[in-house]
Amino acid sequence: MELSPDWVVGFVDGEGCFHVSVNKHPEMSVGYQVLPEFVVVQHERDLQVLYALKRFFACGVVRKNNGDRWCLRIRKLSCLEKVCEFFTKHPLKTKKNVDFIKFRRIVQWMKEGKHLSSEGLLDIVETALQMNTQNRERLLQVKRDLEAVVRYSPPSGESQR
Amino acid sequence: MELSPDWVVGFVDGEGCFHVSVNKHPEMSVGYQVLPEFVVVQHERDLQVLYALKRFFACGVVRKNNGDRWCLRIRKLSCLEKVCEFFTKHPLKTKKNVDFIKFRRIVQWMKEGKHLSSEGLLDIVETALQMNTQNRERLLQVKRDLEAVVRYSPPSGESQR
Repeated sequence: MELSPDWVVGFVDGEGCFHVSVNKHPEMSVGYQVLPEFVVVQHERDLQVLYALKRFFACGVVRKNNGDRWCLRIRKLSCLEKVCEFFTKHPLKTKKNVDFIKFRRIVQWMKEGKHLSSEGLLDIVETALQMNTQNRERLLQVKRDLEAVVRYSPPSGESQR
Repeated sequence: MELSPDWVVGFVDGEGCFHVSVNKHPEMSVGYQVLPEFVVVQHERDLQVLYALKRFFACGVVRKNNGDRWCLRIRKLSCLEKVCEFFTKHPLKTKKNVDFIKFRRIVQWMKEGKHLSSEGLLDIVETALQMNTQNRERLLQVKRDLEAVVRYSPPSGESQR
């Protein structure tokens, strides 16, 4: 199945999701891991579309999601940069583009290592909170934790280990 | 907002719906009205996409659907023919194309007046039942009613009034 850029934009406008989660992770310098991901979920009858998208981006993993739903998931930072380049060159037409722009900013910040300091991570969490997200409560909790840390520590965030 | 054919195909692969309902209607010759429709539903934040699709097909009505959901609905037979021409020239890539092909057959049959006889309507209902439909029970009931009529009447169906 050959996909054209415009088809991919239209399909992702409908079915794609840019998602950022922040999970506790004691081995990370600030105690949290930032996990941006681009996901497309489909019923198993359209599994071949997920594989075509995987080939299109030359990135990602297709796996079972839930029941008869499957998903293409792109998490690798270098792959997400490719995805961001694509949707910068071929912009989404729905309001999903607003989410995408915030997602791209977070991917860029991660490339710059901003997620490795508490202040930087706080910026990431605040940006993720502006996205259309289902894990608002969790992000708000992380935000409160980080605000407490940032408030009572040197600006560099070096002492957060 | 300018839409390209490929974007429209991708978006409809994700968000479009080809739907056929059959409702009791005493004024119709066989007692039922066939209502094929092409529908795209969106959150109100993407209302402008629905209007762009309406301009693209130069057809349809945009109206509130449910809560914060809006829809573009195309029902007029001449408009549905245009929609079918478009998706014949620019095929859908998901399994929705299987539904579309059945939908197109029903639109063509209606153009030929096949829905005006019980036998023809039975063919339409049986084809609609092969589609990914949410009103299966209702269609099955209509099918049983029509089968009883067709079984006990002349083949032409002329006596069904």
